[in-house]
Amino acid sequence: MNLLAQLEQIVGTAHLEVGGHPGLTDMRGAYRGQVQAIVSPGSTEEVAAVVRACVSHQAPVVVQGGNTGLMGAATPDDSGRSVLLLLSRLNRIRALDAENDTITVEAGCILQSVQQAAEDAGRLFPLSLGAEGSCTIGGNLGTNAGGTEVLRYGNARDLTLGLEVVTAEGKVWHGLRGLRKDNTGYDLRDLFIGSEGTLGIITAATLKLYPRPVRFYTALLAFSAIQHAVDFLSEARRCWAAALTGFEVMAGPALVQVAEMLSAQGMPEAPQAGYWYALVEVSEYGVSGQLEGAFEQVLGENLENGLLTDVWIAQNEEQRHAWWHLREQRISEAQRLVPGTIKHDVSLPVSAIPAFISAMEQKTAAAFPGARMVGFGHLGDGNLHYNISPPADADAGSFAACKSAIQHLVHETIHAHGGSVSAEHGIGLAKRDMLARYKQPVELELMRRIKMALDPLNMLNPGKVLPAWSEPGTSIFPGTKESS
Amino acid sequence: MNLLAQLEQIVGTAHLEVGGHPGLTDMRGAYRGQVQAIVSPGSTEEVAAVVRACVSHQAPVVVQGGNTGLMGAATPDDSGRSVLLLLSRLNRIRALDAENDTITVEAGCILQSVQQAAEDAGRLFPLSLGAEGSCTIGGNLGTNAGGTEVLRYGNARDLTLGLEVVTAEGKVWHGLRGLRKDNTGYDLRDLFIGSEGTLGIITAATLKLYPRPVRFYTALLAFSAIQHAVDFLSEARRCWAAALTGFEVMAGPALVQVAEMLSAQGMPEAPQAGYWYALVEVSEYGVSGQLEGAFEQVLGENLENGLLTDVWIAQNEEQRHAWWHLREQRISEAQRLVPGTIKHDVSLPVSAIPAFISAMEQKTAAAFPGARMVGFGHLGDGNLHYNISPPADADAGSFAACKSAIQHLVHETIHAHGGSVSAEHGIGLAKRDMLARYKQPVELELMRRIKMALDPLNMLNPGKVLPAWSEPGTSIFPGTKESS
Repeated sequence: MNLLAQLEQIVGTAHLEVGGHPGLTDMRGAYRGQVQAIVSPGSTEEVAAVVRACVSHQAPVVVQGGNTGLMGAATPDDSGRSVLLLLSRLNRIRALDAENDTITVEAGCILQSVQQAAEDAGRLFPLSLGAEGSCTIGGNLGTNAGGTEVLRYGNARDLTLGLEVVTAEGKVWHGLRGLRKDNTGYDLRDLFIGSEGTLGIITAATLKLYPRPVRFYTALLAFSAIQHAVDFLSEARRCWAAALTGFEVMAGPALVQVAEMLSAQGMPEAPQAGYWYALVEVSEYGVSGQLEGAFEQVLGENLENGLLTDVWIAQNEEQRHAWWHLREQRISEAQRLVPGTIKHDVSLPVSAIPAFISAMEQKTAAAFPGARMVGFGHLGDGNLHYNISPPADADAGSFAACKSAIQHLVHETIHAHGGSVSAEHGIGLAKRDMLARYKQPVELELMRRIKMALDPLNMLNPGKVLPAWSEPGTSIFPGTKESS
Repeated sequence: MNLLAQLEQIVGTAHLEVGGHPGLTDMRGAYRGQVQAIVSPGSTEEVAAVVRACVSHQAPVVVQGGNTGLMGAATPDDSGRSVLLLLSRLNRIRALDAENDTITVEAGCILQSVQQAAEDAGRLFPLSLGAEGSCTIGGNLGTNAGGTEVLRYGNARDLTLGLEVVTAEGKVWHGLRGLRKDNTGYDLRDLFIGSEGTLGIITAATLKLYPRPVRFYTALLAFSAIQHAVDFLSEARRCWAAALTGFEVMAGPALVQVAEMLSAQGMPEAPQAGYWYALVEVSEYGVSGQLEGAFEQVLGENLENGLLTDVWIAQNEEQRHAWWHLREQRISEAQRLVPGTIKHDVSLPVSAIPAFISAMEQKTAAAFPGARMVGFGHLGDGNLHYNISPPADADAGSFAACKSAIQHLVHETIHAHGGSVSAEHGIGLAKRDMLARYKQPVELELMRRIKMALDPLNMLNPGKVLPAWSEPGTSIFPGTKESS
């Protein structure tokens, strides 16, 4: 039987497509692929059967969730040989165990519906990020998503207890354990998380739930130097410990850009290009009001000793939402209006951030005078979205021509300061070849061996994550061609 | 050159032994091995050179830290072919980065000295367990150690950001990253953690630090049923969230045994065999005294509504220490005085604990009438040390003959309730063959492939963790013989 007939038998005519599909292009429009078929299986067993059928016809399988990734990890190549596997029909909440504080969900669940199911049970599922209304939990796990709550609750990896996975041979690993301690062999769970569909297909997960805060204390802070923000983060952690659930920094020029391109609405006063700002939040549980005194006391003391240059405390939920909206939406909106803005997703040890920023300022001033650093990020995680807008008077085209030079400069400087060239967005196709430069050969070799061990026929999302083998004679998986 | 001469050249005469050594026997005296040599390298480069020398002579390498493991994972087999690798000379604190809240330590550091180094810098390294004065951080990572703080801070895995590892070929992976977000490829770190020296040799780690609490609120609680303890745990998590740093349960008969075998010293009143007790602790950070009201209020309300049968609040540090000493030391001391007590280290979803305990009570009463369940454990992690002492009037010898039947009953019942047969002690030799029963074939197959990928010559701690291959034709690593 040919592959299409076999797939049709497995998923039914209604769930097999062969023509164009939005999933063949990535969200940014940077990658475009072609496939033999697009299938939407309705159960884990159907996913496994699809994989077995594809293996028998040597058709690679590319799994896709909400197609909100930024690195091209979920886009098939342009060979036309692959099958695109959509998990949108696997969207059930399978179980919520309130006493165990766990929820078991299928991979195709939208992140927001997982958050909602937790809320309905009086619990918090803390993973939170911009795309939460359309990204799926399977994609979040495949890329080990981060977001704004990592400071307190960790990355997607840290929120996961168990997985159900379809292997590269189309077998099902039933690993949906709701256990907080389980030392019975190798940690397969964390190997699949973050592997971007190249080692196995995550079909369901058992995730941790947390108590819901009853009140938030939120402040907007101004610092005259990034070192002061780093120092205050230490102080905030010492005083508030795990109650500190948000510490988001914004470079002064990023807020100036918002005021110029959109409006200064919601900002307490005109932003200063020479300042750094931080949105800081403390969460309170159980009984409301206990932390109010300590919150204001810590801010007051650090305003007095000069670590903080200015402090605004949110007076109501409306103000709190406006500030989060500024951080999460308006900065990016403003940057979309400035043609040629170049974006980065990098991380550093928190202690190395001031030196990195200072080195970048010098290098940028020398090589690209007038370019504006409009970055923001999750300071508590050392994660900066170190974005750079062209000089106010530059023509966008000539600045865009500098894009790869600027990206290279950022990544080289990050690497020199002990940082990572991908903090939370992953590798996919977009950063794949960087790994050859920034990873040690021994690490790449271990990664390749794991790929060959778990997917010896290179059936799962080929050409993603791992740089092509370059050594002659070791070229077991030739790199696939990037679409353009 | 023969192996001994080569090893001598690498580590120097003073650090090579060939005779008897305490490390050839495990702590419990259950396993004994023989080796060609015992080497104590002084640096990561020396560890790598030792591995390369051993590989070239086909001598397996067994790594050992403080030799405090309970599963025989660090004991060589009795073939006399292996080399025992001690990491005690790799005991430097390499760096402490207070601003990044990280510490970088060598694998041979005693856990207590890591805790002390953190304390000297005003920080907390929260991993805490009975053997902390003699176990090493390398062993803690190799076994993914747990302990009493997992409820709040997680297992050893959760406390680790980066690793330095010597591979099975004697190469060094320099993965000592101090990054809280880093999505650049497969999670090798978590694959080495918990692999008990079978995939690579951890030589150093970068670990997370936390703020130190300024005050503890500690209470001893009595419950008339285990379900009440589970319900109160939910309530405690809702009200105290991450401030809840301890929730240790003790079965009534365990405390009765302490009172009988040792003394009732430090116990607020005579323990009841029909009760469950819990040692509960809330930690306060920054400013002292804010949580006092909420702590007492939550306990008072739940005493009033009948969830708690009795409440004692620690009045001073002395009383707090006495209760922790009861939980951590005196229960085990009393059990050592009752010949034939059978121990278990199991975990469950918290919600399944009452049903598991009820099922075990019925089965034990039927098959081993009079046997006393003297268990205790980390309720917040679902981790029970479900220990069973012989009936008061039994002769120890005949009860000891039931040992394997009782262990089998506990493990079968745990498995039927969705639990794990090894919560925090790992697999080693002692539980290796259980995996063939309790793991799915697909999971064992994935584990074997990973072992073959990272250690294709089976040089690292052979015969541990993985059950012997039983299928004919797939017997790539024959199981090694267990010492007796």
